[in-house]
Amino acid sequence: MAIAGPIGRLITLLGRLPGIGEKSAQRLAFHILRAPPEFAQELAEAVRSVSQEVALCPVCMNLTESEICAVCTDTRREAKLLCVVASVPDLLAVERTGEFRGRYHVLHGVIAPLDGIGPDDLKIAELLSRLKEEEVAEVIVATNPDVEGEATALYLHRLSAPLGIIVSRIAQGMPMGGDIEYTDQATLGRALAGRRPL
Amino acid sequence: MAIAGPIGRLITLLGRLPGIGEKSAQRLAFHILRAPPEFAQELAEAVRSVSQEVALCPVCMNLTESEICAVCTDTRREAKLLCVVASVPDLLAVERTGEFRGRYHVLHGVIAPLDGIGPDDLKIAELLSRLKEEEVAEVIVATNPDVEGEATALYLHRLSAPLGIIVSRIAQGMPMGGDIEYTDQATLGRALAGRRPL
Repeated sequence: MAIAGPIGRLITLLGRLPGIGEKSAQRLAFHILRAPPEFAQELAEAVRSVSQEVALCPVCMNLTESEICAVCTDTRREAKLLCVVASVPDLLAVERTGEFRGRYHVLHGVIAPLDGIGPDDLKIAELLSRLKEEEVAEVIVATNPDVEGEATALYLHRLSAPLGIIVSRIAQGMPMGGDIEYTDQATLGRALAGRRPL
Repeated sequence: MAIAGPIGRLITLLGRLPGIGEKSAQRLAFHILRAPPEFAQELAEAVRSVSQEVALCPVCMNLTESEICAVCTDTRREAKLLCVVASVPDLLAVERTGEFRGRYHVLHGVIAPLDGIGPDDLKIAELLSRLKEEEVAEVIVATNPDVEGEATALYLHRLSAPLGIIVSRIAQGMPMGGDIEYTDQATLGRALAGRRPL
């Protein structure tokens, strides 16, 4: 007996989510079914509203439910400092550090020629017009330390330098709690190259 | 910045699902957000309908969207043979074998005194009235081969035997493709005890 009807449909849809296989989808569907009906109602409403009420902030391309996002409307933030991230989860990760009080620009991807993603597929034109219009002094490129993230950082550097804007890159080195003995050569190499006086 | 609004709410609700941690919930929520709006609509509708349109079959306690479930209304199935399972996913697993052409009774749990679950918390009264009203010849108890599953099987045996009904238990032994060298003693012991002539 294949699972038909509403449960089967729910299992199929859940199975399309990343990291959810058929077995997990079935477990989740039966959990939703057994949970109090209010939970299913709330979840359905949350899924619906997230796709209808959330849009991109026209300034920084962060997600927002209002016209302009909460970061851009926060006047206590330094307007001269811009952190460029690849995605909204990355933005949230930077926010969680509590170390950054400037504003953001979300690229919604990185330059990846092998995947056919070029600068025009990202929010780079929007970044460039911000750099020309706003009084930005420094752009911190917080993309991943991998080939695509580095390529994107270099591209942004070439673009921003002529405007007299400092372009910096987040530091690479040993992670907190790391063990030198077991650290890969590339990371340890970067940590040595990036050494700082105490 | 905590994630507020619809996305935050969706992440919270997804995080309450079994096996979904905070990180996974965030990944799923952003996936739903980036997916075509039709996907979110369909998923929301599936979540909603599963809790509203699905009920228990009054005969066998399987899930159903109609009055009586698809298994109970299937006249080609042997009415004399009843397979007792703990849950609907277990019923589906038995169905997938293609080896069983009788009908089912879903207990919705097993007897587990340590968790405070006794016979009255399960659909055992419903089973007993079926055994008295229907012409059942054999009850196959397909609960898990663990303490609770065994206890439940013994309880059902004590209940059904006085009615002149055969109560059988699914076989225990080596799983297909198993390796004797690496099989735990309990399983191998059961496999020896349950040996059958060729």
